[in-house]
Amino acid sequence: MSTYLAPLADMRFVINELAGLDAVCKLPGYEDATPDTVDHILDEAGKLASDVIAPLNHTGDVEGCAFENGVVRTPKGFIEAYAQFVAGGWNGVPFDPAHGGMGLPWLVATAAFEIWHAANMAFALCPLLNQAACELLATHGSQALKDVYLDKMTTGAWTGTMNLTEPQAGSDLSRVRAKAVKHGPHYHITGQKIFISWGEHDMTDNIVHLVLARTSDAGIKGLSLFIVPKVLVAEDGTLGQRNDLRCVSIEHKLGIKASPTAVMSYGDDGGAIGYLVGEENRGIEYMFTMMNNARLAVGLEGIGVAERAYQHALNFAIERRQGRDPNAKTNEPAPIVRHPDVRRMLLSMRAQTEAARALAYFAAAHLDIAKRHPDDKVRKESQALVDLLIPVVKAWGSDIGIDVANTAIQIHGGTGVIEESGAPQYLRDVRVAAIYEGTNGIQAIDLVGRKVAREQGRTARALVIEMRKLLGKLAAAKDDDAAAIRSALARGCDAFAEATDWIVATHAKDAAAVLAGAVPYLKLVGTGAGGWMMAKAALAATGKDDHFHADKRVTARFYVDHILV
Amino acid sequence: MSTYLAPLADMRFVINELAGLDAVCKLPGYEDATPDTVDHILDEAGKLASDVIAPLNHTGDVEGCAFENGVVRTPKGFIEAYAQFVAGGWNGVPFDPAHGGMGLPWLVATAAFEIWHAANMAFALCPLLNQAACELLATHGSQALKDVYLDKMTTGAWTGTMNLTEPQAGSDLSRVRAKAVKHGPHYHITGQKIFISWGEHDMTDNIVHLVLARTSDAGIKGLSLFIVPKVLVAEDGTLGQRNDLRCVSIEHKLGIKASPTAVMSYGDDGGAIGYLVGEENRGIEYMFTMMNNARLAVGLEGIGVAERAYQHALNFAIERRQGRDPNAKTNEPAPIVRHPDVRRMLLSMRAQTEAARALAYFAAAHLDIAKRHPDDKVRKESQALVDLLIPVVKAWGSDIGIDVANTAIQIHGGTGVIEESGAPQYLRDVRVAAIYEGTNGIQAIDLVGRKVAREQGRTARALVIEMRKLLGKLAAAKDDDAAAIRSALARGCDAFAEATDWIVATHAKDAAAVLAGAVPYLKLVGTGAGGWMMAKAALAATGKDDHFHADKRVTARFYVDHILV
Repeated sequence: MSTYLAPLADMRFVINELAGLDAVCKLPGYEDATPDTVDHILDEAGKLASDVIAPLNHTGDVEGCAFENGVVRTPKGFIEAYAQFVAGGWNGVPFDPAHGGMGLPWLVATAAFEIWHAANMAFALCPLLNQAACELLATHGSQALKDVYLDKMTTGAWTGTMNLTEPQAGSDLSRVRAKAVKHGPHYHITGQKIFISWGEHDMTDNIVHLVLARTSDAGIKGLSLFIVPKVLVAEDGTLGQRNDLRCVSIEHKLGIKASPTAVMSYGDDGGAIGYLVGEENRGIEYMFTMMNNARLAVGLEGIGVAERAYQHALNFAIERRQGRDPNAKTNEPAPIVRHPDVRRMLLSMRAQTEAARALAYFAAAHLDIAKRHPDDKVRKESQALVDLLIPVVKAWGSDIGIDVANTAIQIHGGTGVIEESGAPQYLRDVRVAAIYEGTNGIQAIDLVGRKVAREQGRTARALVIEMRKLLGKLAAAKDDDAAAIRSALARGCDAFAEATDWIVATHAKDAAAVLAGAVPYLKLVGTGAGGWMMAKAALAATGKDDHFHADKRVTARFYVDHILV
Repeated sequence: MSTYLAPLADMRFVINELAGLDAVCKLPGYEDATPDTVDHILDEAGKLASDVIAPLNHTGDVEGCAFENGVVRTPKGFIEAYAQFVAGGWNGVPFDPAHGGMGLPWLVATAAFEIWHAANMAFALCPLLNQAACELLATHGSQALKDVYLDKMTTGAWTGTMNLTEPQAGSDLSRVRAKAVKHGPHYHITGQKIFISWGEHDMTDNIVHLVLARTSDAGIKGLSLFIVPKVLVAEDGTLGQRNDLRCVSIEHKLGIKASPTAVMSYGDDGGAIGYLVGEENRGIEYMFTMMNNARLAVGLEGIGVAERAYQHALNFAIERRQGRDPNAKTNEPAPIVRHPDVRRMLLSMRAQTEAARALAYFAAAHLDIAKRHPDDKVRKESQALVDLLIPVVKAWGSDIGIDVANTAIQIHGGTGVIEESGAPQYLRDVRVAAIYEGTNGIQAIDLVGRKVAREQGRTARALVIEMRKLLGKLAAAKDDDAAAIRSALARGCDAFAEATDWIVATHAKDAAAVLAGAVPYLKLVGTGAGGWMMAKAALAATGKDDHFHADKRVTARFYVDHILV
């Protein structure tokens, strides 16, 4: 089984040259996030990933999780690996040092998280949800709740989950039936939740469920959010009795088999004790805080798994000998990496992965700016850009993960469908990324509706203007590659602008037409903005003759010739 | 678990209107293949598929095959289902009635086979390989071999397999090491073969292995083909001793888990007895007879599974209620089939499946013409067209199977990745179709090299001329849809012609460049020729106001708007 090496040089290039760490580390509180510090953090993350977490990826898939009498047993090695993850402080990279976090920018947390997803998507899903829960609690929880739960969650001593879905309430949360009834200082929660990732496990001694439940009959507006701990916590922070909730079963899934997906039952014995987060009837609003974060993270899953699948396929293509190299004189069997079609496949994997990574990190950098920039106008503009890009990073990134993982299978030939080769797992694992945290169709609806039509295309058009600024620089570069990139990017910008105008003009009079075009539009935005990132990369690499920068130019050229067409 | 219904009306439409049954049933020996007879045959196939074979698809996947001490046990129900398949004569649809076949055109056999693949791809893989072996033996075997084996294989009382691959010899068969040494009237075969589909099973009392083995050291030209039966056959046709061959293990695969993929060992005790097919050193040539047949069949696997996945997803979309229909006034939860993006996905599945089906059946009709037309020139032209289209049907058809199965998962939302829903199996099953019988990359290399460059693009250009003949008819139809279809098809023809010219001009001076463009070229040919078929369908449906024909026009329009772009 090939190992995983975090692509530190690629990440560094994106962080510094494309996403703009220089601007981020000028933000208040992020002064320590210098390139050196960031390098050091990612280097350490890469070591833990390669040495401890990645080796559990295939074994975890083969073993899966065991379920018996409400207890979930994670695969061999997961408890110990998670303990190391907690000891390294990796749950708290972007969080307040006052609660045990590292206080680093989301840009850095995003890069680190790509490493965890690549190493072991099933494992990383636990901190992913915990991170989202931490952000939600930090933003909307009372001081009392924070005092009891936030430190434990920031360090990862306890893990957070997200309980939204019920059998009749998937994409449509207005149909949630779980109930919350006020009972003195807390609430009694009853109902069943499904698809709860890491809803039960044996890696920590408590699990903090964030549960959406109904406090009134007013549809989507009657939902409130509760903290419902697996084990009740005394005022002094010690663990007490089990709460009235249990894991009923876990799902038999296509992939991420090492991550338990639980059916949870609340209140079988009268009501699980839940603590209201914020105010009643604002649950959906709070959940959205968490979902934006989680959606960026799910896009990153696609990117991380794509990187891993690429490395796996590249290693195979270097080792496997079959057929002749058409550029060689010899009849000796050549490594298949010499075959033009295999090279085309590898380049398509790399080009897509790099473009999606750059766009995700760029979005993360703007998340930091949106949170911390001293100028209100800049904050607002960055927030709008983040809001526009989040559904794109989620859906386009996860679709790229699927496509790249599928290509990795193809490069393996016959062994590609044999589980022992490790190749099929990437596709099986990453497939869910296009579905959970809002299907990619829901992301596209969010994009065309809430993000484009609602503000008459303002942010989308501003992005096109920003993208077009690169056209002049590309023209000035005066080489064939830059000319090809310029021409493709110009077409991409035109298509983006034209489609945006159409959405703005059509949305009010024919919503169904816009909804039918939502997914193609999202793909267009992702491909175009990804092309913009690749063009930036090509320019940043121009005039540098080393292999690394030459590769960046080749990959950008491939991207515009094969993807941005 | 939703059932499968053979799409008989769609098949009939393709067979009669697009593939040209009228011309096929004028061929000598095919006079009985009237539309009524064909309907009856497919109707019967559909019943057996729905009632017996399709219900074993999911259970077979869950149970898989068991292996112990060289013995393979197929999943519950397979033995009985296969007996019914044999009793119905379904193994012999296109073969000589003198050997127990039905003597029907390949066009009909192709449609019937789509039904088996759709019902149960793992099950159908056994008759697929047997059919290929029958054709090979009928074409190249001696009368003595035919007397002993061909009747049994045509009825399916014994099944045929294809033993090519070895660990070091996958796509590159010149590296085969299995040896054949002459020993009196037969040969002693020694060596190991891997990836042998249905290489061992419990459905019949003998298995007839077609084994590629080395009779001299002359690379690819030193390979000969042998019949190596699992159980030796006495002159009177009775079964005797076990031959010196055994199944060493079976693979743990991503999909088609009900079909055993065997590692076979020949001659552990001195040499398995093998009988030479045809002449020594012509093994590869003979194998190609079988491979062309098998490649068409693998493309059909993609189409069959695509149809099944479409039906599964459509049923789910009709039953599952979630969110609002944007065209409805009510707030009641709507079946998700009312959502524009779900409709877009369903139409993309249907459009791709129908285009690939039409092209596959069209190729099958030309296979019949190539075999039986009284005019030598017509036979040769049809054969050249078949040779051009086979790699396209194989690769484009299997890629469409993967894409459609992937979309079926997406339509299911969260349940799409839960195995109990049945949705993930289609993707897991069909994934191998892009790999076996020559990877899709190999198909593309075959297309640009042996099929286009070698004859200076003659047949490809003839196909473009044929395709362009439809442009005038589309212009004459004078409606918006026909105009849109015409314009897309014209662009498709131009791209096909231009790329063909480039291949012809470039192949000799820069083979690597052509090879790098091989897969995109194959996709272009498939998409373009598929668009031609959809345009034909739209014209055939013009002026007919029933739902069926209206749907054909809508699907054709969708195809050119979303796929042929």
